[in-house]
Amino acid sequence: MKHDRILLSHGSGGKLSYQLIHEIFLKAFGNEFLSPLNDQAVFSLPASRLAFTTDSYVVNPIFFPGGDIGKLSVCGTINDLAVGGAEPLYLSVSFIIEEGLLVEELKMVVDSMSRTAKHAGVKIITGDTKVVERGKGDKLFINTTGIGVIKDGINLSPLLIRPGNAIIVSGSIGDHGIAILSHREGIQMKIPVESDCAALHGLVKDVISQSNGILAMRDPTRGGLATTLNELVSSSGCGMIIEESAIPVKEEVKGACEILGFDPLYLANEGKLIAIVSKDSANTVLEAMQKNPLGRNASIIGAVVDAPQGKVLLETSIGNRRILDMLSGEQLPRIC
Amino acid sequence: MKHDRILLSHGSGGKLSYQLIHEIFLKAFGNEFLSPLNDQAVFSLPASRLAFTTDSYVVNPIFFPGGDIGKLSVCGTINDLAVGGAEPLYLSVSFIIEEGLLVEELKMVVDSMSRTAKHAGVKIITGDTKVVERGKGDKLFINTTGIGVIKDGINLSPLLIRPGNAIIVSGSIGDHGIAILSHREGIQMKIPVESDCAALHGLVKDVISQSNGILAMRDPTRGGLATTLNELVSSSGCGMIIEESAIPVKEEVKGACEILGFDPLYLANEGKLIAIVSKDSANTVLEAMQKNPLGRNASIIGAVVDAPQGKVLLETSIGNRRILDMLSGEQLPRIC
Repeated sequence: MKHDRILLSHGSGGKLSYQLIHEIFLKAFGNEFLSPLNDQAVFSLPASRLAFTTDSYVVNPIFFPGGDIGKLSVCGTINDLAVGGAEPLYLSVSFIIEEGLLVEELKMVVDSMSRTAKHAGVKIITGDTKVVERGKGDKLFINTTGIGVIKDGINLSPLLIRPGNAIIVSGSIGDHGIAILSHREGIQMKIPVESDCAALHGLVKDVISQSNGILAMRDPTRGGLATTLNELVSSSGCGMIIEESAIPVKEEVKGACEILGFDPLYLANEGKLIAIVSKDSANTVLEAMQKNPLGRNASIIGAVVDAPQGKVLLETSIGNRRILDMLSGEQLPRIC
Repeated sequence: MKHDRILLSHGSGGKLSYQLIHEIFLKAFGNEFLSPLNDQAVFSLPASRLAFTTDSYVVNPIFFPGGDIGKLSVCGTINDLAVGGAEPLYLSVSFIIEEGLLVEELKMVVDSMSRTAKHAGVKIITGDTKVVERGKGDKLFINTTGIGVIKDGINLSPLLIRPGNAIIVSGSIGDHGIAILSHREGIQMKIPVESDCAALHGLVKDVISQSNGILAMRDPTRGGLATTLNELVSSSGCGMIIEESAIPVKEEVKGACEILGFDPLYLANEGKLIAIVSKDSANTVLEAMQKNPLGRNASIIGAVVDAPQGKVLLETSIGNRRILDMLSGEQLPRIC
């Protein structure tokens, strides 16, 4: 690359765009679908149910303990496919770069995306780059949009949730939120917390192969566990009772939350999933999760109930019950 | 909506996000795939070749003569599918909103997207919204990612281009660039120029149904006609000779270019396509284009040649030949 920093001309569609695409993007992502550089990628699929999902990532800072915006943008979209029971196959990637971004930083992000995608077995097959003037963006925003295939026999939907179902979370919550916050604010912690950012489709595959009692899955990102559970009761028309003491939270996350005044139940996670499973399958699913490194600390945290409809009740450690509402307001902007 | 302007909390994933999604996005876009609000949309397709494309739109201003960022974001991605010979089916939409955007402006953009998608027969089936702080974005950026189906027998690729092929452009060039520029800079023109922003899949369908002599198509957006022709010669290994006098340019666009020092060959278009067709099919394709309102002013502008390989030669109105290079530098940032 001739320049150290991204210029507006890198987004012009002309010579510098051509150079950026060849020197940075194709070197990292190149594959048989992307490399012809047509306006669209073409691929064949057998007759199938497809899953399709999109997310733009605006996390600040773009590098944080346990990950970066590139890794996050690949894992996040893989996870949105995986929790629908889909096997992720292809991603598109679109960059909105603020003029002046160091080419070296872009390269680090792109390499991280490439590694994460390869490790996850997904291909980045089409892309786009725009550059905006200084002060009209914030270093780097990334959109990834994903396509996956849902195998026959897999049907997951909040509409299948029934009273009596068990609620499982795949591991400790709040790690991503605290990792971003502490890094952003320069808070020194005795035990530093890393983001849990990870691709979950392997974990999903493991549990689906062990049990057909899984009814619905979600990844509790923005708004945290509490908001995601509220979305599930709102879609299903059931209620939930959650046992606070059963929710895995790392001691260092608890400590940080106490000092900073955050509630871990509302903090974003980027490598955790919630599964709603039939009562009979609960232990099978739990054990299957715990065998996978990404589900080692999985826990049954509660049950689906009849009433109160559309509400999540939290049974606190001291035995009180309170309504666990959706996030209102904003705890932490730009977390993903 | 309770607020006049977008707040950071509208991007939190919590209550205000929920309200924004229901009051604005679902009202405009709602359909059987999107409305369940799962993390992913699920649809079925017969065995097929699929086309997949992504674009982020950062155009400034977000409203301009002949369109807005919403219409542009739907048409642009439809066009990237269409020029690959695909029938566009589904779109994802992802918004990056700057805190403080008027909800009324967002609503206008969303309504424009909804109208454009309905008119084009495509469905918006999954989406995402992020909000960034004031000064960290610029009102509104939109990513759309599209999926289309390519029917059997349709094969378009720059690799099929051969010497002797004709080069057709579907209408006058430079309209979008001049429309954005004159509006942005507040230039009063005797005859105002509107953006040509339009979905081209109907035009593509018309010509494909009339001829199997079409070898490759492109839409000359960023970098303009000149850059797109250069991409085609670079992919195909052939050369091209273009006749300047055959390129349709509106008088008012010519006039604006002369005053402002722009070359229409490098200005962005958002409703035009270039088709490379076998010599024998040239007139059939031209006539099919001209019967469609979006191709009324289509013109054969040149031919593919053996040499010089990888170069585009422009035969000027006064009989000189010069090399027509890719755009270098940036004429107009944030044009799409």
